[in-house]
Amino acid sequence: MKPIPILVIAAIIAAGVSGAMTFSAGGADDESSPIFGVKIPSGYRDWRLISVAHEEGNLNDLRAILGNDIAIEASREGKLPFPDGTIIARLAWSYDPLEESIKAFGRPQSFVAGPPKNGVQFMVKDSRKYAATGGWGFAHFDDGKPANEAVHNTCFACHQVAQSRDFVFNRYAR
Amino acid sequence: MKPIPILVIAAIIAAGVSGAMTFSAGGADDESSPIFGVKIPSGYRDWRLISVAHEEGNLNDLRAILGNDIAIEASREGKLPFPDGTIIARLAWSYDPLEESIKAFGRPQSFVAGPPKNGVQFMVKDSRKYAATGGWGFAHFDDGKPANEAVHNTCFACHQVAQSRDFVFNRYAR
Repeated sequence: MKPIPILVIAAIIAAGVSGAMTFSAGGADDESSPIFGVKIPSGYRDWRLISVAHEEGNLNDLRAILGNDIAIEASREGKLPFPDGTIIARLAWSYDPLEESIKAFGRPQSFVAGPPKNGVQFMVKDSRKYAATGGWGFAHFDDGKPANEAVHNTCFACHQVAQSRDFVFNRYAR
Repeated sequence: MKPIPILVIAAIIAAGVSGAMTFSAGGADDESSPIFGVKIPSGYRDWRLISVAHEEGNLNDLRAILGNDIAIEASREGKLPFPDGTIIARLAWSYDPLEESIKAFGRPQSFVAGPPKNGVQFMVKDSRKYAATGGWGFAHFDDGKPANEAVHNTCFACHQVAQSRDFVFNRYAR
């Protein structure tokens, strides 16, 4: 049996419960981000790659930007604004030195993704539903649990810096 | 029209020419890695993500490790050795500071994939064909052109450090 990451379990639960019935506690509603109501999209870990990044400073992680088919197509073509239905996922992991590489190179110089770190984030494009925030709904999950409202109030404020790129920082890595 | 990366063009040419007929010059044979005879696999940029990494030092790049379906399945399950048919792709890009992030954070701290850098590499598992090199065939391409024999002689020597992991440095990022 392969170990199943907790985010995948959360996604399966969210996907399975959604649309079936309403629970008063412990159901799908608990899994939505505040303000925007975004859930963890099922199967996002298998989405294709938009780009990769390294955050230095306090964040100190390695990250991958993945996209659903609409996001990949639009990113590749450089089409702005992103069409409705676009979902962009930001995964991040601990920035860990690779032990085998130290042996091969004789010095630490290769850094690889360790355990998950700094949560997982999503941007969902719905130009009508999220008109007040540039057409984007935001979500941040730690261990499958959405962060609080204060955290979600910071998303759009920061992404406004990238307004000329439809609020998306990353470009498709060719 | 979206711009088509040169590696994709090379892959299309290699895939289209392969098996059709033999050219004396400019054909598919030119696109194979020396020693191992590995070609650029068609559509590898759309493969799923195994992990991400940052090489410091002279390499100074951001990289993504992608895998074909067999590679993804095996990596996820931590199944060793990798089965025949596994192909692992190592893409790399320039390690570039993100301008918009400097504006958002007030300091350079986000680094993202810039233009392609340090070529693209593949490991192909065929336990019989490549028995002398741990069952792996190696390939390094710069701008779609395979590197020379001397370069390809270094592949297995370095990967031997990771013998206990079937010569693969990267682990699946969960």
